Amino acid sequence: MADIKDYIAKNKDRFLSELVDLLKIPSISADSNYKDDMLKTAEAVKKKLLEAGCDSAEICETPGHPVVYGEKIFDKDLPTVLVYGHYDVQPPDPLDLWDSPPFEPVIKESEIHPEGAIYARGACDDKGQMFMHVKALEYMTQNDKLPCNVKFMIEGEEEVGSEHLGWFIERNKEKLANDVILISDTGMIAKDTPSITTGLRGLSYMEVEVTGPNRDLHSGLYGGAVANPINILSELIASLTDENNHITIPGFYDKVEELSKEERKKMAEAPYDEEAYKEKIDIGDVHGEAGYSTLERASIRPTLDVNGMWGGYIGEGAKTVLPAKAYAKISMRLVPNQDWEEISQLFKKHLESIAPKSVKVEVTPHHGGYPYVTPIDTIGYRAASKAYEDTFGKTPIPQRSGGSIPIVSLFEQELKSKIILMGFGFDTDAIHSPNEHFGVWNYLKGIETIPGFYKHFTEMSK
Amino acid sequence: MADIKDYIAKNKDRFLSELVDLLKIPSISADSNYKDDMLKTAEAVKKKLLEAGCDSAEICETPGHPVVYGEKIFDKDLPTVLVYGHYDVQPPDPLDLWDSPPFEPVIKESEIHPEGAIYARGACDDKGQMFMHVKALEYMTQNDKLPCNVKFMIEGEEEVGSEHLGWFIERNKEKLANDVILISDTGMIAKDTPSITTGLRGLSYMEVEVTGPNRDLHSGLYGGAVANPINILSELIASLTDENNHITIPGFYDKVEELSKEERKKMAEAPYDEEAYKEKIDIGDVHGEAGYSTLERASIRPTLDVNGMWGGYIGEGAKTVLPAKAYAKISMRLVPNQDWEEISQLFKKHLESIAPKSVKVEVTPHHGGYPYVTPIDTIGYRAASKAYEDTFGKTPIPQRSGGSIPIVSLFEQELKSKIILMGFGFDTDAIHSPNEHFGVWNYLKGIETIPGFYKHFTEMSK
Repeated sequence: MADIKDYIAKNKDRFLSELVDLLKIPSISADSNYKDDMLKTAEAVKKKLLEAGCDSAEICETPGHPVVYGEKIFDKDLPTVLVYGHYDVQPPDPLDLWDSPPFEPVIKESEIHPEGAIYARGACDDKGQMFMHVKALEYMTQNDKLPCNVKFMIEGEEEVGSEHLGWFIERNKEKLANDVILISDTGMIAKDTPSITTGLRGLSYMEVEVTGPNRDLHSGLYGGAVANPINILSELIASLTDENNHITIPGFYDKVEELSKEERKKMAEAPYDEEAYKEKIDIGDVHGEAGYSTLERASIRPTLDVNGMWGGYIGEGAKTVLPAKAYAKISMRLVPNQDWEEISQLFKKHLESIAPKSVKVEVTPHHGGYPYVTPIDTIGYRAASKAYEDTFGKTPIPQRSGGSIPIVSLFEQELKSKIILMGFGFDTDAIHSPNEHFGVWNYLKGIETIPGFYKHFTEMSK
Repeated sequence: MADIKDYIAKNKDRFLSELVDLLKIPSISADSNYKDDMLKTAEAVKKKLLEAGCDSAEICETPGHPVVYGEKIFDKDLPTVLVYGHYDVQPPDPLDLWDSPPFEPVIKESEIHPEGAIYARGACDDKGQMFMHVKALEYMTQNDKLPCNVKFMIEGEEEVGSEHLGWFIERNKEKLANDVILISDTGMIAKDTPSITTGLRGLSYMEVEVTGPNRDLHSGLYGGAVANPINILSELIASLTDENNHITIPGFYDKVEELSKEERKKMAEAPYDEEAYKEKIDIGDVHGEAGYSTLERASIRPTLDVNGMWGGYIGEGAKTVLPAKAYAKISMRLVPNQDWEEISQLFKKHLESIAPKSVKVEVTPHHGGYPYVTPIDTIGYRAASKAYEDTFGKTPIPQRSGGSIPIVSLFEQELKSKIILMGFGFDTDAIHSPNEHFGVWNYLKGIETIPGFYKHFTEMSK
């Protein structure tokens, strides 16, 4: 029976090459052109689950992209860990900003990753982090170290709002029954500062279409007399925040959880260097809601960001057009107690109410998800904390993240168990951006830490 | 010797098929991929000029797209008419809004054009209108009706700001010497309301690039704390007009020509039906500068329109990105006494001054042009007016247009002659838009009217 460190050292190259193979398949859930690749990826995940020691694995159809389910039932009287992850990835564009093609993974060293990092779309989010669990299972089954039961639910729609995962869970509650849900789809502070994510923001993602005239017009003949949908959309967007960067949608803040002075003081103790933050992403200044720090703005406060906007002539050179249409994709990150469906409705109602008569404004909600906060006094959290202590030699810091995993709150509601967010990525890993990567060190450290969770969780559950 | 009406009746089909051939070549000056088609179009125009009776025609190189020059010198002691037009066209996109492909001309009837209209990019602007002059010359030379000298200067960069036409004119002043400049690149009010354009707006066309972080960021991890270039660009654009739709750029209105009450009263007498205007382009309301009518907003007042804007994720579905960049193409239509180079500088300076420190704003002027107003007490105007009276049985109305032909003011400055704008298109011809078209009636009426201008101008010049 090998020790985990030895097992990793012996199998490191294979662990990497298997992940590289998985990253080569462009599983872009948002784009229907990649439907076949989605299925190909699901097949690959199923195969890897069986190879790692699952008794069974299957591809479960849904009205959208399928879910891969696998399980290893060791002893029905022992606890069951449900691992959740996703095999779909964000669209890679803008492609011209990638240093290497997004679906041709390369391993390169960087300042933060002297041991090398795998550059590919999905490297960190979430193929790499999901695959840590598959390799951890392989270690445990190959070396008689699996102390309990394990189930895997790897979905293909996380990047498009997990549209059909609720449908799947509702129909498979018994199959998915578990004692704790383990997810690696978040980050940690730094190599020497392990952390466990205890909060996620919710999300409301909207699309706005502004229609002016029934055709593109000549901006000379009609300009000045006919509302320009791009100008109007710009004005609508600008009006959604005030001079203090507060969001102006009526009722938006009504249910926002306000943290106490003590809580905010504790947050401020986390290691943070604003100059380094600005330098890393090359900005002249931070920018956000008045009265809150950068860390607070990016975790405990709601936001409103335009994720995409387009209209009129966007080619080379000049075209003097007054366009018929303008579009924007706008998402709001939400914090505890905000209800994403309510916020989506408030947004829609507000935008439609402020639109001038000279244009038509259509608002379509894309998807959303509830915020999530997990307590730190559960067996699950304490087991995870101990696992980190074993491998990092340090107690991990509980940390609220600004990101969202829209489906997480549903897990708790439907499956009645707590979620443990053991993330091993860094904020600088450029997830959702060109040149996404995942450190080799982080990948192997995740594989090393996970079996400890199973051990401590089983022991603490006795 | 045939009468012009007979000649048109006999040659109508050929006049149409020759124009159709010219419209098939995609001479898009803004897009460098069409460089060969630009040259092919210039060659075709040269050939047509020689066929129509020019003594000589040539393709004159410039640092950009070439100019086609042709002439028929009849008698050096007689007046010379210089015809200006352009063989380049606007980009045709968005392609999916065309009912038939933009470079596969079709003739179809419409409500406004019961005799049929030619649908193709450039049908009206300006291949169709330019070609009326070629066919009018053919009539005059074939039937001994040319009473003076004629020169043609047909350029290939009008839709991209005539960047090198000034260069060409400067070097060819003697060759281009003339007594009057004749242009058909504007419109007329209606079939039963002929009009001559006496004013054009100027233009300042700018491109704005807003840069936030040095890469696209995850909108969950960074959203709320880092300035989003699309949100910021929307705010900048929104701030460029106030609640009365006045433009807020300091100094913008300083030189604007204010029309007298009498002049505005006279303008208000032109036939105009606001309900029909709104219905035709399907808008709920007109929209523009407080204190001015729709006709005034679209002709004697300056404007600011976003012609194109883009940033972030604009594909199918959702992507939660905080983009590194956002872009806009913005043009301002200018009125008499506004200096486009000064306005471009005011725009640039203002936008850079209001940009927050959290982003970088770069403003690049594309091109521009001066406004133009022509007096109506010249021989040229009177000759044109008489030509319309001959063919329409009505005195044409002098009309200020909202469009721009940026190079027109340079003609007067460099060539010291007046410009006569005999346009035969309608505002509804969808120039610069999908489904651009030019009425068969309008095309033939132009060919019919033009020889009258030569006759009256030569007689009045004696």
